[in-house]
Amino acid sequence: MVVIGNMEKPYLGIDIGGSKIKGVLFDSRKNRWFPVFNVKTPKNKKDFLIILDREIDKIIQKKKLAGIGVGLPGVVDLKKGILIKAPNLPFLNNWQAGKFFSKFKVKTKFDNDSRCFVISEFILGAGRNYKNIAGIGVGTGIGGGIVINNKIYYGKNYNAGEFGHMIIDGKKSLEQMGAKRAFLKYGDRSKIIGIGVANIINILNPEVVILGGGGAAEGEVKIGIVRKIAQKYIVSPLAKKTPVIKGKLGENSQAVGSAMLFRI
Amino acid sequence: MVVIGNMEKPYLGIDIGGSKIKGVLFDSRKNRWFPVFNVKTPKNKKDFLIILDREIDKIIQKKKLAGIGVGLPGVVDLKKGILIKAPNLPFLNNWQAGKFFSKFKVKTKFDNDSRCFVISEFILGAGRNYKNIAGIGVGTGIGGGIVINNKIYYGKNYNAGEFGHMIIDGKKSLEQMGAKRAFLKYGDRSKIIGIGVANIINILNPEVVILGGGGAAEGEVKIGIVRKIAQKYIVSPLAKKTPVIKGKLGENSQAVGSAMLFRI
Repeated sequence: MVVIGNMEKPYLGIDIGGSKIKGVLFDSRKNRWFPVFNVKTPKNKKDFLIILDREIDKIIQKKKLAGIGVGLPGVVDLKKGILIKAPNLPFLNNWQAGKFFSKFKVKTKFDNDSRCFVISEFILGAGRNYKNIAGIGVGTGIGGGIVINNKIYYGKNYNAGEFGHMIIDGKKSLEQMGAKRAFLKYGDRSKIIGIGVANIINILNPEVVILGGGGAAEGEVKIGIVRKIAQKYIVSPLAKKTPVIKGKLGENSQAVGSAMLFRI
Repeated sequence: MVVIGNMEKPYLGIDIGGSKIKGVLFDSRKNRWFPVFNVKTPKNKKDFLIILDREIDKIIQKKKLAGIGVGLPGVVDLKKGILIKAPNLPFLNNWQAGKFFSKFKVKTKFDNDSRCFVISEFILGAGRNYKNIAGIGVGTGIGGGIVINNKIYYGKNYNAGEFGHMIIDGKKSLEQMGAKRAFLKYGDRSKIIGIGVANIINILNPEVVILGGGGAAEGEVKIGIVRKIAQKYIVSPLAKKTPVIKGKLGENSQAVGSAMLFRI
């Protein structure tokens, strides 16, 4: 599936996820995008690089790009373009993504995939009217991103927002219990996510919590259960009123946010 | 114990804690302070108000104050001066502190007690050289405060930094397991606090984590254990290097920070 349309010098946004690699073309002037590829993530590095190369090459052959933005599934060294740690795709630990992309001769930016979801929701989606946002991306893993005072909050090492690695049950993390890989029923996973949401509200007291990522887009995250459980554990009566909502950009939010990395 | 010294128009900082009520006088020009009272927190509201009134009155009789800053143990409505919820002193739930203090005819400001600890460490203590700080106050309860980009981060309802209410063990919170009231051995409490520190670093990726409050000042919090456990659960190899240190202002840090509420 490659539909290029009549965009002039669009950005290519790529979301490298635990189960899918998705691409969108994004017209930065008109805030329009459409999907250009959606393939299964191969289970080893060699096939992964072949597939990624092929999909990008198909686009480049047809369209001059303004830039490529890449959302990576894990701890990212943004400046060096290294995926330091990929908990759900361990064959990509320490992947020198920057080096790989240099061959396309197009300006490329990298960020964590869940932060890309938050960027797209903040700029164009459910977070448009807020300046303090916590976003939780639920998919194969669980990640997140934080907007403070209208700016993405990166933290010292550009690693802020790793909500999934919060320990919430003795030795088990939110991701281990609440993500796809937990193999629990949707309802039980939503309860776990509700506890995670309460923790985040108690810590950050944001204006809004946005749930996104593949899990939320595909309906695995039951927002009613999440809200109910979160209510129980939020300590501030004022903060209990924090809206907990789903993202608006659906399954492409991470790829769209990746394409927007040149705009933040 | 009332030693007034030769300060001119000092601020009075009051730390209302689960076990002690402490007061310091603070000279804002010279950044000097000294303790002026330290009494046990009564177990009912009537005695509490009598004691608080008596201690403040003794100071006011001797010295003209520039202002009074009060650190309250729980969820605070800063603007209205209401202690909305005091988990460790439930008889103070919904206490109209602003009304009580109005009788002293001195400008008064209120904040959460652990945030006051972070303010003092940020301005004068272990956080002086940092602009992104997470501070955890360990005492009868566990609270916290956040500095982002050289400013105290309050969140939408002024309730950000409630680290103690983070669920870390199924249904139990960091405070329930790690604070004085948990009645666990110091070492076991320090392990729990280590998990809390890892969670905070994974979420906020601050430049430094500062541990303070009575528990840290009195040596109940074993910093070596906290660091070791935190290392285990921090996901980013870069963030594993985050310094985790004790506050420098000791047991008076909350009262000193309360006196500094006029400076932030």
